[in-house]
Amino acid sequence: MDRQDGVSRRAFLVTGALGAAALAAPRQAGAQAQTTKFHVKPLPAEIFIDHGINQETRLETLRGYLTPASHFYIRNHGPTPVLDAAAWRLRVEGDAVERPLELTFDDLLRLPARSVIAFVECAGNGRGFFKEFMGRVASGTQWRFGAIGVAEWTGVPLGAVLELARVRPDTPRDVLNVLVEGLDAVKVNRPMSLAKALEEDTLLAYAMNGEPLPPDHGFPVRAIVPGWVGINNIKWVGRIEVRRTVIDVPTTTKTYVLEGPDYPTRVPLRLQTIKSAVALPWGATLRAGRQRIRGFAWSPVGRISRVEYSLDRGATWQPAALREPNIPRAWVRWDFEWDARPGEHAILTRAVDDHGNVQPPAIPWNAQGYGYNVPVPHPVRVM
Amino acid sequence: MDRQDGVSRRAFLVTGALGAAALAAPRQAGAQAQTTKFHVKPLPAEIFIDHGINQETRLETLRGYLTPASHFYIRNHGPTPVLDAAAWRLRVEGDAVERPLELTFDDLLRLPARSVIAFVECAGNGRGFFKEFMGRVASGTQWRFGAIGVAEWTGVPLGAVLELARVRPDTPRDVLNVLVEGLDAVKVNRPMSLAKALEEDTLLAYAMNGEPLPPDHGFPVRAIVPGWVGINNIKWVGRIEVRRTVIDVPTTTKTYVLEGPDYPTRVPLRLQTIKSAVALPWGATLRAGRQRIRGFAWSPVGRISRVEYSLDRGATWQPAALREPNIPRAWVRWDFEWDARPGEHAILTRAVDDHGNVQPPAIPWNAQGYGYNVPVPHPVRVM
Repeated sequence: MDRQDGVSRRAFLVTGALGAAALAAPRQAGAQAQTTKFHVKPLPAEIFIDHGINQETRLETLRGYLTPASHFYIRNHGPTPVLDAAAWRLRVEGDAVERPLELTFDDLLRLPARSVIAFVECAGNGRGFFKEFMGRVASGTQWRFGAIGVAEWTGVPLGAVLELARVRPDTPRDVLNVLVEGLDAVKVNRPMSLAKALEEDTLLAYAMNGEPLPPDHGFPVRAIVPGWVGINNIKWVGRIEVRRTVIDVPTTTKTYVLEGPDYPTRVPLRLQTIKSAVALPWGATLRAGRQRIRGFAWSPVGRISRVEYSLDRGATWQPAALREPNIPRAWVRWDFEWDARPGEHAILTRAVDDHGNVQPPAIPWNAQGYGYNVPVPHPVRVM
Repeated sequence: MDRQDGVSRRAFLVTGALGAAALAAPRQAGAQAQTTKFHVKPLPAEIFIDHGINQETRLETLRGYLTPASHFYIRNHGPTPVLDAAAWRLRVEGDAVERPLELTFDDLLRLPARSVIAFVECAGNGRGFFKEFMGRVASGTQWRFGAIGVAEWTGVPLGAVLELARVRPDTPRDVLNVLVEGLDAVKVNRPMSLAKALEEDTLLAYAMNGEPLPPDHGFPVRAIVPGWVGINNIKWVGRIEVRRTVIDVPTTTKTYVLEGPDYPTRVPLRLQTIKSAVALPWGATLRAGRQRIRGFAWSPVGRISRVEYSLDRGATWQPAALREPNIPRAWVRWDFEWDARPGEHAILTRAVDDHGNVQPPAIPWNAQGYGYNVPVPHPVRVM
């Protein structure tokens, strides 16, 4: 972040005007009223596995690289609030802030925009496999691998807003001291480090795949924190607090922590883990003959460099073909051809990223079921 | 294109099966009936300039990098047909084809998919400026610069389909001999060269920004021919013909040709021209003070390396900031800060690509108004 630029940015913000017409887009229909429905968008059973307030994407329904809003998984802590962008305010405050701010939605639109293609993934994606393959239930939604989606997010770098608020230069960069808080009923909040907050791809986003954020995905503004666990990507953002010390909140002291017999102390989550998934229903039925098996692989820190598959439960591995695009902290699509013979089969896949991370053969259990990324035997029946 | 692979591709195509379940997506609602409406999607006046059967995007309404289907311009030669994917067939034939084919939509879904982010732009985008700045009307829709959009297109490389049809190896590569034909009422068709048809990013696309193509944009299948004029991106594709000789059709002999006093012979169009546009209404009104002016720039052959703007009608030029992403044959977003003083102003912009192409100070007039890419003085009133 270029601190020299702070004066001019503040200047143009205070001066106002700034061609809001250039950024005007049709207002979200029906953005005036609160609703008590859990979700706003349609949730057809062909696309989503219904976990109640949470909805898992059936990855086999995705055709392109990007996940359309209509197919994007939902992880909510309460019903989706339907907010009015004109009434929306963002407060920026805290003891590390020299100039507390309140921004309107139009103020945000006037700041330079950035678009980032990145995954957003629930911290507990894959949680169901702790039970399925380790025999130990972890608490929470029993997702398989469908609590992930990749979209183009457009908004303002969070760093640009922190610059307007003049974060003190001696603020520690590596502790969890930038809290982002939602306007939902339970005010879900979660801190990240100042270093992460200042990365150019960390956004206060107002658009998803070029359109205003849908209510279920955070309208009017959500955080996008590439590579970090989903909870950091706070929806319906209303307040940001920056402190000179770590911010302890229940989402880092009680929930979203690694804990269990193999963890001497609770560890607040930051990064996701590298994973791959087969784009077939769990327990798919295929006809015998040549089949093209496809799927997705993603890493929280880089680009996927290799995906391998095994049809003999891990005895031997073959490379899958990777299909462009292959964007870091988004995902890559892979596929392979399989001469499928009748019977019961399991397809294992494992991914490697360009930082040398690989899906491990085993991981320790944790009570809340985070980070499951062991290659899973995806069951397939061939008729 | 790897010709060695032809046998295995044909083999799996003939064997069939291939996990169509993996690619199943909800069928387009109402895909059973023909309609006589011009267009299917809503066309609000805030988003589109109404040219009747053609609809121009107001570039100032775009928020992200990608153009959502709801905002994508429409250039049709007749009413949008609403087709049934289950009944759709693609014929591949012609004297350069050793194995004529007929493919179903499911056959197409079984082939390896590719996604490409690219612009599609009407050949006549900017046509209105021939009248506005040269005083000579060119025939056709009087677009300004809004007959362009950038989307993620997903489908099968056309080359993979031509490989299945076994195009004869001695077929000329650089003449316009691969004809793509639509299933609309007038069967719009247009040839490209075999070389272009075999580029890996030339697609038979069935998805746009991750969702099935909307009817107005070619459901179920359209051609995507990056960098070439919009007419090559045939919608509602139904037939492909490959010949050992040039294919002359009215869209290369009469329309979509450069002709006029400066063109001794008619020249069929291939590539688009490099352009830039300001994302403000034509004749915008802004308040005095610091303004952020933004826009788009694109090239048919590469990535934009520089955008410059002039506020003194071309006497001096300043660099604009380019915003990521910057994808070749898609576009880049640029912006600059302007301390706007009251009065009438003109904003000129010019783009340069990484092949050294630059928007020229003048171009010859042509009767059909193609390729206008002279920097235009975008009128702005500051109050």
